[in-house]
Amino acid sequence: MPSAYTRLTSRFQRLSRFGHLSAIAGWDMMTMMSPGGSRARGEALAELSVLQHQILTSPETAVDLVQAKQESLSDDEWVNLAEMERAWQQAVILPARLVEAKSVAGSRCENAWRSQRPANDWKGFAENLKEVVYLSRQEAEIRAQNAGVSRYDALLDIYEPGMTSCQLDTIFSDIKSWLPDLLQRVITHQSEQSIQQPQGPFTIENQRHLGLKAMETLGFDFDAGRLDVSAHPFCGGVPQDVRITTRYDQQNFLSALMGVIHETGHARYEQNLPTQWPGQPIALARSTAIHESQSLFFEMQLGRSPAFLARILPEVINHLGVQPALTQQNFIRLAQRVEPGLIRVNADEVSYPAHIILRYEIERALIESEIEVEDIPALWQEKMERLLGMDTTGNYRNGCMQDIHWTDGAFGYFPTYTLGAMYAAQLFQALGRTLPDVEQLIADGDLQPVFIWLQENIWHHGSRFSTRELITRASGEDLNPRWFRQHLESRYLAD
Amino acid sequence: MPSAYTRLTSRFQRLSRFGHLSAIAGWDMMTMMSPGGSRARGEALAELSVLQHQILTSPETAVDLVQAKQESLSDDEWVNLAEMERAWQQAVILPARLVEAKSVAGSRCENAWRSQRPANDWKGFAENLKEVVYLSRQEAEIRAQNAGVSRYDALLDIYEPGMTSCQLDTIFSDIKSWLPDLLQRVITHQSEQSIQQPQGPFTIENQRHLGLKAMETLGFDFDAGRLDVSAHPFCGGVPQDVRITTRYDQQNFLSALMGVIHETGHARYEQNLPTQWPGQPIALARSTAIHESQSLFFEMQLGRSPAFLARILPEVINHLGVQPALTQQNFIRLAQRVEPGLIRVNADEVSYPAHIILRYEIERALIESEIEVEDIPALWQEKMERLLGMDTTGNYRNGCMQDIHWTDGAFGYFPTYTLGAMYAAQLFQALGRTLPDVEQLIADGDLQPVFIWLQENIWHHGSRFSTRELITRASGEDLNPRWFRQHLESRYLAD
Repeated sequence: MPSAYTRLTSRFQRLSRFGHLSAIAGWDMMTMMSPGGSRARGEALAELSVLQHQILTSPETAVDLVQAKQESLSDDEWVNLAEMERAWQQAVILPARLVEAKSVAGSRCENAWRSQRPANDWKGFAENLKEVVYLSRQEAEIRAQNAGVSRYDALLDIYEPGMTSCQLDTIFSDIKSWLPDLLQRVITHQSEQSIQQPQGPFTIENQRHLGLKAMETLGFDFDAGRLDVSAHPFCGGVPQDVRITTRYDQQNFLSALMGVIHETGHARYEQNLPTQWPGQPIALARSTAIHESQSLFFEMQLGRSPAFLARILPEVINHLGVQPALTQQNFIRLAQRVEPGLIRVNADEVSYPAHIILRYEIERALIESEIEVEDIPALWQEKMERLLGMDTTGNYRNGCMQDIHWTDGAFGYFPTYTLGAMYAAQLFQALGRTLPDVEQLIADGDLQPVFIWLQENIWHHGSRFSTRELITRASGEDLNPRWFRQHLESRYLAD
Repeated sequence: MPSAYTRLTSRFQRLSRFGHLSAIAGWDMMTMMSPGGSRARGEALAELSVLQHQILTSPETAVDLVQAKQESLSDDEWVNLAEMERAWQQAVILPARLVEAKSVAGSRCENAWRSQRPANDWKGFAENLKEVVYLSRQEAEIRAQNAGVSRYDALLDIYEPGMTSCQLDTIFSDIKSWLPDLLQRVITHQSEQSIQQPQGPFTIENQRHLGLKAMETLGFDFDAGRLDVSAHPFCGGVPQDVRITTRYDQQNFLSALMGVIHETGHARYEQNLPTQWPGQPIALARSTAIHESQSLFFEMQLGRSPAFLARILPEVINHLGVQPALTQQNFIRLAQRVEPGLIRVNADEVSYPAHIILRYEIERALIESEIEVEDIPALWQEKMERLLGMDTTGNYRNGCMQDIHWTDGAFGYFPTYTLGAMYAAQLFQALGRTLPDVEQLIADGDLQPVFIWLQENIWHHGSRFSTRELITRASGEDLNPRWFRQHLESRYLAD
């Protein structure tokens, strides 16, 4: 008779195999699927998610979770057990009916969004979104009552265990206190610099090969993953086969290149998660914000640093051809250009937090029933005006319809982007204390010591430590927004 | 309380949703997956197939099948119930231990075959194959005892319900009586014609666009499917999202083009299956041979007909460029070239049946324990010599090791290729009685009446009728090999 803990590990391995199929079918939906397949795919994925929910919330799981606590377990097994219990807890409180309804409504909303967004069809989109919000509030209410927290905090905890809106409010109000001013100073500073735009078109094929070269430089394992195209770049698949995507703009090669570098950060985290616990929660990435810290470490700390840009420039020229805009100085200016815009995913790292704070404030109010779906456009308009000085009236496509997140009810996710940016800055700062010559290493293309540091401090730990413990072990302190501010000031105002 | 029949339809719809995920993950494995993903993918798909088997063979299914027979059902529901029972019967009859042993032995044999075939390692291959044959005989024995038929007939019935080796013997001995002579006459006839080979290379991109154009001409619904590349061409996915593949030879564009036309035949059948019974067995394609009849209808009856070839030639020139070999007469000669060879998948339609008859005779004797694995090479050699006049001594790689089918125990599958060819000829003949001007329609590119006929006579019926009834309703008689012979004679000896 296997122990309760052993039974649990078998069950979680089985769940992980179903998760594998769900990840691949989900990736396929965004990259390969014909439009006609969407309904059947939605139903198939919903059926699978019901099954996963059933396995996770079966009475046997509950009994085994209790029983396993009586067994003699190693430290890692205790951690794994706690992660199992957390997953079980997250799942068991939702009725299967709600899980399925959310999945179906989310698929419908997301698929319609793919054509509604280009058509600027806010009315059509709002119809579907209302259903998603309605179901997300139900979910939040159930979770909130169980955890004794607010509705929004209950959703936030899914992506960022331990984080609260109270903490976020503190951090974000700090950022709001200096960001608009910093932004203005950077813009003024940069307005004194001349900058030359590269002349496209740059073919997709050439950009793709440049992206693959960057992935290679950054250590992506092509035996365990691939690069494709999707409307909204993401990192999907499974650790043994990581699927990253980008999208190409023939006039602007930097957008796809930096997107690829960003997703490569996610990918390397996945590809380097611990392998000694196959299919177990302890082997998963720590949290959404830590995941984002890796992509932003790659894109912002490494990718847009002068040393890395100088290093990659010959490859850019090699793939896209010589042109006046591709001098080292101008290339760095292009990659570090700060220019507030409407689109979050195109935003520079200085204005990015404004996009997040705006979404955070809206989604929190939405989940707490302080506002309704109809109120979103006006609030969006007002906050964009205030935070970035931009007008989005009537421009739903590039306003509140620009992101995929809300379409399938991922409320509570947005804050993790800016948390990730702050963790990334803090980790890079800590790395610099271990490797004082890090800039020289990057300039020499000797990135291995950087990857080893990330592997030892982040990747190989999976979910062995809490976010707080992980970040404290790696950097000597809990999340401290000062490193992010210092990074922005030194990068954008120093010279 | 839903009726037993309703419970069964829900269960089969659920199975069909899991089948959807299995189909997409299977397609991905052959077209997209990184090598590093293969082990995890194998485990995930095996986990899913265990689940599907459990659902199908659950005690509730057995009880509901009995109970549903007492309920008041429509004609279609009776048919669907019979198909459900057939699927259940096929699954429940094998002990789980045998299913697993077969799966393990099949995987081992197939994986080793991938390197043993290029190495011409018959001895190594035979070792693994013996185990597969041993287990397949056990499977056949269990099925045979249950159905009261011979061992081989029990396996044949999996792919071609209702077909027997007695019928096959009659048909194949008929073919054997005229095929070698016909083949000789065709070769003599064609040796008097001059033929010019096209000069490659033809880029994959150009060939791909030509293939897409052919798919469009043949009515492929791009809203419900796509074209990709795999080592061995196939048609996969689900009816709402059909995935066909091809492979490109830069020197020989006809191979990929005809492959695409072939798979488009499979695809249109899938895309036009009935939609009023979602997820039910009655809505599935009738059988493997009927599926093959559709691909061969597209490739052989339509695709290699002079009228179609003349129609598609301007597109070929448009995509691949003008060259001397691309005159109408020479293009037709290229597409209709008869040249016996060692490899089944490269065979022309005149010599193809010889490849099948040879395999049928060997696999039948093998399953009936009349011969052993060691006897295969000598028999292969003798039959190749007799049927096609070719010597394969010592050439296992391009002899008895060339196909994947036996590696995982798919005995009983091969005959469906030639049954498909005969059904295709018979259907085209029947179509000609309804549309006497069919050649003119093809020449004019007005294929819609042809597709409507196929839709009304084959596609829309799904599994509503037995193969015999389907073919009799469509053509006025049961399978009659004379139409295939007449097709070959009139195409290859008329001018």
